[in-house]
Amino acid sequence: MSDSPTDAALDDVYGTDLASTPRGDGVRDLLMTDRWNTPLGRPNGGYILAAMLRGLGEEIGASDPLVAAITYHSAPANGPAEITARPVRLGRRVQTGDATLVQDEKLVAQLTASFGLRTEGMRIELGAPPALGPPDQYPDPRDHGMPTGGIFDRVDYRIPRVPGFFVGKPSGDPSFEIWQRRSDGGLADFPTLAFLCDSFVPPVLELGGEVRHSMTVQLTAHFHRLPTTPWVATRLVTRRIHDGFHEEDCELWDEEGNLLAQSRQLALVV
Amino acid sequence: MSDSPTDAALDDVYGTDLASTPRGDGVRDLLMTDRWNTPLGRPNGGYILAAMLRGLGEEIGASDPLVAAITYHSAPANGPAEITARPVRLGRRVQTGDATLVQDEKLVAQLTASFGLRTEGMRIELGAPPALGPPDQYPDPRDHGMPTGGIFDRVDYRIPRVPGFFVGKPSGDPSFEIWQRRSDGGLADFPTLAFLCDSFVPPVLELGGEVRHSMTVQLTAHFHRLPTTPWVATRLVTRRIHDGFHEEDCELWDEEGNLLAQSRQLALVV
Repeated sequence: MSDSPTDAALDDVYGTDLASTPRGDGVRDLLMTDRWNTPLGRPNGGYILAAMLRGLGEEIGASDPLVAAITYHSAPANGPAEITARPVRLGRRVQTGDATLVQDEKLVAQLTASFGLRTEGMRIELGAPPALGPPDQYPDPRDHGMPTGGIFDRVDYRIPRVPGFFVGKPSGDPSFEIWQRRSDGGLADFPTLAFLCDSFVPPVLELGGEVRHSMTVQLTAHFHRLPTTPWVATRLVTRRIHDGFHEEDCELWDEEGNLLAQSRQLALVV
Repeated sequence: MSDSPTDAALDDVYGTDLASTPRGDGVRDLLMTDRWNTPLGRPNGGYILAAMLRGLGEEIGASDPLVAAITYHSAPANGPAEITARPVRLGRRVQTGDATLVQDEKLVAQLTASFGLRTEGMRIELGAPPALGPPDQYPDPRDHGMPTGGIFDRVDYRIPRVPGFFVGKPSGDPSFEIWQRRSDGGLADFPTLAFLCDSFVPPVLELGGEVRHSMTVQLTAHFHRLPTTPWVATRLVTRRIHDGFHEEDCELWDEEGNLLAQSRQLALVV
């Protein structure tokens, strides 16, 4: 721990930057630093989801999210923002609330999330984790043309195949299987898992051509369990592009082959 | 067409039962008839999604949904209900609104949906439609132990493998590939596609044992295009059960092998 508040904050960027401060009546203050910016210079959507999910959970007294659906309405900027969260229905098995993020009187995003009481019982998994070897056998893409700064400093990546579009040669295959972990080496909590669903570059960019950027319109994430080790095996795939939009599916798996979370998003091709 | 209002209504059950009547200020009246009841004697969740999506689209002047996310809060009943719909942000490319369904002062469901301007451009589909032969080569499951009445009279099904749990012998495989069409032979519009994402029996029931029923908590549907023929090839699969919940993915494909819509839901195992 450092004596300087600034250094102390930097020691726990996840803890401080995902936290919002309650002002009462469900209103919370969030400061969106540039530490979560994408290469386009604006706060990453996954970060916004993570901060809103954490704020909503704290507001309604629930910490174990089952599903979160967010719609992004306008581009966020660095600086202060206001989360307004409210309970919608607090049942015994499922507790649901919604939240908005407003900045300069502009609605940036709206979230509906359900939290729940997980019970013991049948556990079945018919999917398979990414076919990845141990993280330390793969390169860090920052040594191979990937930009640094912003969110790319919040996550350590290990990647068997360096994305071609980093070096101007899109592979044509809109999918990645990669390792991710918090760059501070910490374990992911649920808000962090939400962030990790959208913390790498969109695989759709590997198609090249008219696909230059991707802007998320809507993302729904399902949460299953927390990891017990820092590395998260991540499968990203875009299976379809249509009418100026694309989809992207993400799965997060722990090192033992358990699904942690999955998401699907609709995004604009721009 | 018949002279009797009742018969006329029955001639177009999709048209009448999915319609809600605007009362002004975004409030709309919906009558939930027993024609969409599940075997448990309550209106089907897919029907509720379809009626809310149609009402919301009409209210905000948008007809082409891209994505819809619904959360179900309490059990619906037959009888009158109130949809309250409002625009959230009406942009050039994407228009978003949300809606609630209230019955006897009880919140039944809340919906957020984005509609959009589809543009020409790249079209890529990396998925594959269900491996089904023509519909007329398969049996109607109502001849093999499937219940009739309610939603099972709203849809014609053709099924290569009759679900084992209909006859007390769950197969152990929580997936189905089936044909569906409106029982009136009509083409599916977008609200009907939303309904068809949740209009058959949950494949999770094929696991048997402690799985007796499934209650949807949240469902997100993505819409791609409208079919040009009535039959819709439908893939339903549950890949995971955990902590008393399960997921279910649905894909709807047209007879020419184009994806029409897809959905993912979180449901309680009960």
